Order: sequence, then structure tokens, then C-alpha cells
Amino acid sequence: MVLDSKTRVVALVGGVGGAKLVYGLSKILAPGQFSMIGNVADDFELYGLHISPDLDTVMYTLAGIANPATGWGLQGETWRMLDMLRGYGEDIWFGLGDGDMATHVLRTFWLARGMTLTAITGRLAAALGVQHRLLPVTDDPLATMVDTVEHGTLAFQEYFVRYQWKPVVRRVWFEGADDARLTGAAAAALAEADIIVISPSNPVLSIAPLLAVPGMRAALEARRGVCVAVSPFVGGKAVKGPAEKLMKELGMDISPQGLIQYYAGLLDGLVIDELDADDAPDGPPPVLVTRTLMQSEDDRIRLATEVVNWSESV
Amino acid sequence: MVLDSKTRVVALVGGVGGAKLVYGLSKILAPGQFSMIGNVADDFELYGLHISPDLDTVMYTLAGIANPATGWGLQGETWRMLDMLRGYGEDIWFGLGDGDMATHVLRTFWLARGMTLTAITGRLAAALGVQHRLLPVTDDPLATMVDTVEHGTLAFQEYFVRYQWKPVVRRVWFEGADDARLTGAAAAALAEADIIVISPSNPVLSIAPLLAVPGMRAALEARRGVCVAVSPFVGGKAVKGPAEKLMKELGMDISPQGLIQYYAGLLDGLVIDELDADDAPDGPPPVLVTRTLMQSEDDRIRLATEVVNWSESV
Repeated sequence: MVLDSKTRVVALVGGVGGAKLVYGLSKILAPGQFSMIGNVADDFELYGLHISPDLDTVMYTLAGIANPATGWGLQGETWRMLDMLRGYGEDIWFGLGDGDMATHVLRTFWLARGMTLTAITGRLAAALGVQHRLLPVTDDPLATMVDTVEHGTLAFQEYFVRYQWKPVVRRVWFEGADDARLTGAAAAALAEADIIVISPSNPVLSIAPLLAVPGMRAALEARRGVCVAVSPFVGGKAVKGPAEKLMKELGMDISPQGLIQYYAGLLDGLVIDELDADDAPDGPPPVLVTRTLMQSEDDRIRLATEVVNWSESV
Repeated sequence: MVLDSKTRVVALVGGVGGAKLVYGLSKILAPGQFSMIGNVADDFELYGLHISPDLDTVMYTLAGIANPATGWGLQGETWRMLDMLRGYGEDIWFGLGDGDMATHVLRTFWLARGMTLTAITGRLAAALGVQHRLLPVTDDPLATMVDTVEHGTLAFQEYFVRYQWKPVVRRVWFEGADDARLTGAAAAALAEADIIVISPSNPVLSIAPLLAVPGMRAALEARRGVCVAVSPFVGGKAVKGPAEKLMKELGMDISPQGLIQYYAGLLDGLVIDELDADDAPDGPPPVLVTRTLMQSEDDRIRLATEVVNWSESV
């Protein structure tokens, strides 16, 4: 632990990119100091199974069992069930790994018995040895929908996995956002936070659905500590995934200044990569220029440490 | 095909032992000539998945993909999901194989969407290349319950798998039998049958639940052809499984004469093993003494051929 044990940190986190940073944060902060609020708008049902890709990515990453090559799924995963489903003539476009199935089956079974997604996520994560709290932003239905030029409105996983984010996007929206409620656990974590970190997850697909949950934006605006975002872009490009392509299709500015505008009213600081130093605005808010690409475990811990230490100073 | 193409055969079948004989029958009879009526009273739910062990054993056996060592499950099966479930702290007593999961997931998903078990079984079997009709005896809930000395009343799979049929059995009964209906497809197959074969499955655990479905016994009694049973015992012992132990605990006589009494009114012939020749009753009904142990594919085909040819003569 590098930090004052009283400092409380909350991270807003989506999938692969954000998972790397929260892994680093989990290594430098005690379980009582650090909570994550996770995206559930990419959750979906397949064959009646409730799948929570972002929560699982974070959970597996923190448990040290994520596939290091992909960032999602389990290391050493096998695909025998998927092969058998194909043998039954099913057209499968989502990677239902054999080990991953245990997560899907338990979550689906417990949801059907009335457990909340918050309680289920806590139980699964604890069983995998994850001591820090991973909190779904809401226990209510929330679904990212993508209006595309080629295929009309697509559910998120259809856009992302089935069509491999190739369609041109006109609009992204969140079905159920009007009726979703921020969980009490997430609200409490935000209210106690000294530092809120917006992870380098996709701003439109991972962070926006968190902000779309009624109460979330107000909780951030009412923060008693600071809120800093870590840019997901390196050298003006997405490290992985559709952020750059998608945001340009939506006419958005992915420069540091563009991110500050996107998160208007929420940021006390922005962390950008050294490759984007030339585009660093003068502020406010203040900008930290550092190396944000996380290729190793050391990278994750170093960036997490820098982000927290710098946040304490802004 | 060894037979007159007009002869229609229906087999009543449970799990492993019966599956071997119906495999043999499927090799000597055209798809239009041969149907199976399968036991569903050992079906159960685990983690919300609808599992049909007997139907799957027959389906995998006929598809040529059953595990040859166990007789149930898939050949080359892997157990990664089960390992992961155990990693989550789950106490698993049923073998949820990774490939097998595809069957459970599809069946559960389709049932939830309103498909009948008959339609689902037909679709799964057809996709695996099984051309002969495998018909669940009923599409309604039916559950074998076992009253034991040690553990009170157990659901069948608890008795059979969890407790490995060690408890002493006082009574076997079938929950839901009063309200279950014989399917139209099964009734039609029975009405058209020239030969009805009661497979060498467990008389109490596999055949009795078929007979317990209202309409089944009447359909057998109204047979226009013949009904023959193949004894599951060899040398006065069960080849595998609890038949001998269980029936003795229930005070039943497992000799050929005992089987004739058990199936009273239903049999036009009984096939027994040559090791039980000394116990062969004089009849009626007539008794065929042959080698009933099926260790190879040739054994299955030879016994099936003998049973059908002999049935045509009784």
C-alpha cells in the first residue's frame, strides 16, 4: 500500500482497458479503501443465460485468471460446449467458454431465485479471491443500444461481437435508463470517495451508460473529493476496440480537450498519454501527462499509483 | 435391414442397458419401422438447467457419441465448467460435462420458449444424426421419488448419483404420474406396433415410470402385436446399476418367473440370458434363452435381431 489508509477511491469501470487500471488500483489500495462501479449495460441474454461481460472482465482480471491475450474471458479457456452447440446447428457469435459458463450459469440461477446482481457479483468475486468491492452500477435492466447505418438498431453485443463494430454508428442510447436506479452500495461508495477515477474505458460505450443511470451524475457532481479521468486514447488513437472509430462517427472530438468537454462539470483532472502531450490543454482542469499504456503488471501499478498520488494534489 | 419392411417395432427404454439394445434395433430397422419411448422420470433441474439423463443416454448412444466406458455422457468429455463451479465453492454431485452442457442449455432454453420435450428431443436427436424417433413418454412433469431408510424421500438423482444408490429403499413412486399424459406420438407408435420390446432397463426405475403414465398400460394391454421383455439380469445379477439391490430391498423376485409376474398381463414373451437357463419357466409366456450381455456392437445387433425374429414367431 502506497497510500494513506484513510483515502477512499472509487473507480468507474467498463471492460478491458479500465480493468487494467483497476487491477493496478487493487494492488496499491486496501479492500476497505477501493471500490469499483461497473458497467452492466452490455449485459445480455443468450440461450436464457444472463451474461455480464464487463463485470466478468473486471472480476477475472482482479482474480488474476483473465486471458492475458484478449483481456476478456478466462486464461486456458476451452470451447467444447460451443463446438457441441455448433454441432446442434446453432449459429453462435459469442464466445461461451466452458469455464466462463460456470459464471453465467450461477449468475442466471441466482437471479432467477431473486438475488440482486450486486449480491451475486459480490459472491462470485469473493469466491475467486477478489477482496475489493465490485459494484454493478444498477440492479435494474439497462441495455446499450446502437443505431447503425447498415443494420438499424442493434443490441450492444450484436454490434460489438456479432458485427465486430464494423457498422457505422449514428447514435448510442441506453434502454431502461429512465427506470434504472443507482444501487445503494454504489451511491454510498461515491458519497464516501476522496478520489473518483473514471477509468480509461470507452467513454461512450462504458462510461456513458454509468452516467446515464439516474442519480449517478448528481452523485458525481455532489462529490466531496476529486474526480479525475484517465484518457483511453494514446497518440490520438484507441488502444483497442471501437472508441476512436465510434466517436468519430458520432462527430465527437477525441482530443484531451474533447474529453474535458465530454465530461464537462465532472472533472477535477485529466490524465493523458505522453504521446498526446502536444494536445494537452492548459486547463482547468489540470492535466497529468504520463505513460498510460499498460502492457505489464508493473505498468498497471505504476499508472494507478501516479493517478492516485496526483489526484491527491489537484 | 434383416426384416420385413412393414414390421413396426417400438421399444420402451430407460438408460444405459436399454440404450444398448435400442442401438442394435436402430441398426436393423429403418427409421420408419422403429420408435423408442423414453423414460423422463429421472429428469431433474440443476442450476435451473433441465437435464434428461435417460433421453440423452439413448440419443448419444444412437448418435455414436456416447462415452463407451460409462455408457452415459459423451465420449471425450471435458469438465472445465464443473471445475470452475467447484472453484466458486459449489458442491457438485452430478457430472455436468462441457459438451453435455450444450444439450442441457438448448433443452432448457427451448422449454422456456414453450417447445415440448417431444419436439426438443426430436430436434436435438435429428441434429446429431439420429434418424429413428426417440419419444419422451410424456411432455408433463414426472419424477421418480425414492423413499429410503437412511435419508427419507430422495429425488431420483440424489439417490442414484449423489448417494450412489447406497441407501436402502423402502418404496419407489412417481410424482406427477396422476396428471401426466401419454404423448400423442407415443400413443400412435404403440397403436401401430407389431412388436413392443421392453428393453433390459431397470424394471422399477426405468420401465415402471413408463407404465405409470396414465394410458401407457392400457395401450400395452390393447396391443395388436406382441410385447416381449428382455431381462436386465444375467446370472441372477444386474449387469450394472441398482436393479438387483433395489428390487431385493423391495422384496421382489428377480428371477425370470419374478419378471413375468412383475409384467403380468403385458408379456407375450420373455428373453433371458443363458446363464439363467436353469431358472427358465415353462411358460406361458414362451421364453427365449440366449446371450443377452452386450459388450460389443456385434452383441447389440445380434441380440436385437434375435429378439425381433423370435418376437415374430411367438
